[in-house]
Amino acid sequence: MANASAAPAAPFWTEESLGEVVSARAKILGPGVWAAAQPDPRPVISFAGGLPDVPSLPDAELLRATRAVLERERREALQYGGVFGPAPLRAAIAERSSRIEGLPLGEERVIITSGAAHGIGVACEALLDPGDVALVESPTFPGSLRTIRSFGADIEAVPMDEDGLRVDLLEAALRRLADEGRRAKLLYCIPTHQNPTGVTLPLARRERLLELARDHRLPLMEDDAYGEIWFGKPPPPSLFALSGGELAIKVATFSKVIATGLRLGWNLAPPALVNRMAAVRYDMGSSPYLGRTVAEVIRDGGLDRHVEGLRAVYARKLDRLCDALDRHCGEYASYRRPEGGFFVWLGLRPGLSALKAQRAANEKAVIVGAGPHFFAGGEATQHLRLAFSYTPVEEIEEGVHRLGEALAEVAARSANGQPA
Amino acid sequence: MANASAAPAAPFWTEESLGEVVSARAKILGPGVWAAAQPDPRPVISFAGGLPDVPSLPDAELLRATRAVLERERREALQYGGVFGPAPLRAAIAERSSRIEGLPLGEERVIITSGAAHGIGVACEALLDPGDVALVESPTFPGSLRTIRSFGADIEAVPMDEDGLRVDLLEAALRRLADEGRRAKLLYCIPTHQNPTGVTLPLARRERLLELARDHRLPLMEDDAYGEIWFGKPPPPSLFALSGGELAIKVATFSKVIATGLRLGWNLAPPALVNRMAAVRYDMGSSPYLGRTVAEVIRDGGLDRHVEGLRAVYARKLDRLCDALDRHCGEYASYRRPEGGFFVWLGLRPGLSALKAQRAANEKAVIVGAGPHFFAGGEATQHLRLAFSYTPVEEIEEGVHRLGEALAEVAARSANGQPA
Repeated sequence: MANASAAPAAPFWTEESLGEVVSARAKILGPGVWAAAQPDPRPVISFAGGLPDVPSLPDAELLRATRAVLERERREALQYGGVFGPAPLRAAIAERSSRIEGLPLGEERVIITSGAAHGIGVACEALLDPGDVALVESPTFPGSLRTIRSFGADIEAVPMDEDGLRVDLLEAALRRLADEGRRAKLLYCIPTHQNPTGVTLPLARRERLLELARDHRLPLMEDDAYGEIWFGKPPPPSLFALSGGELAIKVATFSKVIATGLRLGWNLAPPALVNRMAAVRYDMGSSPYLGRTVAEVIRDGGLDRHVEGLRAVYARKLDRLCDALDRHCGEYASYRRPEGGFFVWLGLRPGLSALKAQRAANEKAVIVGAGPHFFAGGEATQHLRLAFSYTPVEEIEEGVHRLGEALAEVAARSANGQPA
Repeated sequence: MANASAAPAAPFWTEESLGEVVSARAKILGPGVWAAAQPDPRPVISFAGGLPDVPSLPDAELLRATRAVLERERREALQYGGVFGPAPLRAAIAERSSRIEGLPLGEERVIITSGAAHGIGVACEALLDPGDVALVESPTFPGSLRTIRSFGADIEAVPMDEDGLRVDLLEAALRRLADEGRRAKLLYCIPTHQNPTGVTLPLARRERLLELARDHRLPLMEDDAYGEIWFGKPPPPSLFALSGGELAIKVATFSKVIATGLRLGWNLAPPALVNRMAAVRYDMGSSPYLGRTVAEVIRDGGLDRHVEGLRAVYARKLDRLCDALDRHCGEYASYRRPEGGFFVWLGLRPGLSALKAQRAANEKAVIVGAGPHFFAGGEATQHLRLAFSYTPVEEIEEGVHRLGEALAEVAARSANGQPA
């Protein structure tokens, strides 16, 4: 357009001067952000992130769907689609969800989001004000904790046991809050193939949880990012389904069943809540170009067939991981085999520190998650989170072998009373 | 997964019961939302929305780019790309913007957004708290007003004249605020091919505006959705460029130069502000699949060539519109021919009501925007906004012919003192 000046001027808005003008939420979140992962310069074996299997990413199918959409509905795909999301994708999700949830669902219960993290964001935006109480199961996914915290909510962590959320402790917390004249604005939980523990909440606890939600008028935010990835037998019905679609926001995503790079997901919720979530977003709705492409992938059972294939891929990786853990780490750690999802929650034997174990593994170019990272208060815990989803299947054995060596070293050092 | 129940239960969360639990922001925004436009059952001629020309939507180029990306960078396109947005798109925008803005810009000044509306949303999120003062030029784009208002900000409207924002009145407002011990958190403006007026702020006013921004430490939010669509001669440098990239957030989008259905745009800003905007979003960044596709479209000057073609398309539509206005509406209305953008701001002669004119045109199946809609306070104004971008070129003459008839009717009725 024109030459304004030869070079950027001296910084006017710096991190320091911005401090005076940024919002309260920006202050809570701080300037640090999650950029794209920087690749480790070493040839590492990673059990770190809940990322999908790379060879299974359906690029050919996405290209086919893009072509079909541009040929058939070019005009609609390339124009605004409204804040609820593109109609064909809402319809395809309503139809598929009716089947999965076992109850008839119309489009009015579906809002398309830019992934589960965004779905959690819009649900929090619709419900939370500073000073509100938000309940979370503990441990949980730290990204969601960060989001909930940014709204200025007081987070109350409800412990889990090996069957998931301690619903009895939830009840106690709700009673205590009621006694204090306070009321929780939501419960955030991942009842199926939980992140990080891998645990699935049994049916009886789900039903009790719904009773509590009804009695205490507690909105439930059910994160179901991993619900479709099950091995052997399907999980119990979702909280959303068990309540007839009336008590929970079910947060879902195409990230784990198609690709994280789409940034596309959906929330199922009571229609009045769908409307509120649509109203608090500023992006004029998720991309019709992308949404219609994914609707085309869903059509004719294409996504169902893909998910079936993924279950086999991840079951095989889990088998390989468990086999290796039993051989290389059995002396130092134990775990409960998950019935689905991407994670094994490895409990270290007494005296072994998760942070030290993580560090020792890292020195052997093996990346694992450390338990304390997943607790609202950063509690000490003797767990590691191993994601088996992303690791190439042929690297699992070697990765766990090195992890076993790392655990042996940490055990030897703690037996000798050395700092590690 | 399982049969939960045969049919949805009775509504538990209704609009009424939700009233107790929704957030303050959700209360401001209300449950009503902008769904996808419902097509008018009549064969209307629409001058209503700032939508791009449909035949120019580059579907073939997008399909080619998608194929190239999936062949070359499948893995990166289908995985998370970080909150700043996919690296190749940031790089392509930094390179292209360096050329357009006339100053060397690195990726650290670029954040990819899900369109300009989202870009405005993240900027507000980073800066605004309830009770903060936000300045806006008036009239302006109502979607942005809605966003700014939702943060609980006190909006102060600064009038425009036929050369755009009255910078002298802005100065008076800033002084008054300073005297009151208050400080504006941002100024939202559309200095180039403004929506709705079509006006472009002259260079001298831009320079004075930057002096004020520096003196009053006022962050500028410069909405540049239409900046690249100029006819004849390019507009003056952007506020962002004139400040050496240090004083303004320039909000930009691919909506008007590629397609609104992508939901993809970018903000240029000082690096410290880019970081803050990245930190306050919850979507884990805009889609790498989409972003890399658009980077491929930009590459080798492809987008530049496309934009050149668009300028010719819209210049031709504007010619057709002005010619028809002069012949059919000259008696009732006048306008200043815009130097770019999508809009003509049609001033009706004294005594003619914009709302009545809009209604009369609608009865003739011609859709136009009414001026009062674009003012923060809904002020009465005798203007209509005509978007010439979307209307098929062969319908413009007929549409304006009918508009002229509508204006004649309204004029006759007001001359007779009849209610219209």
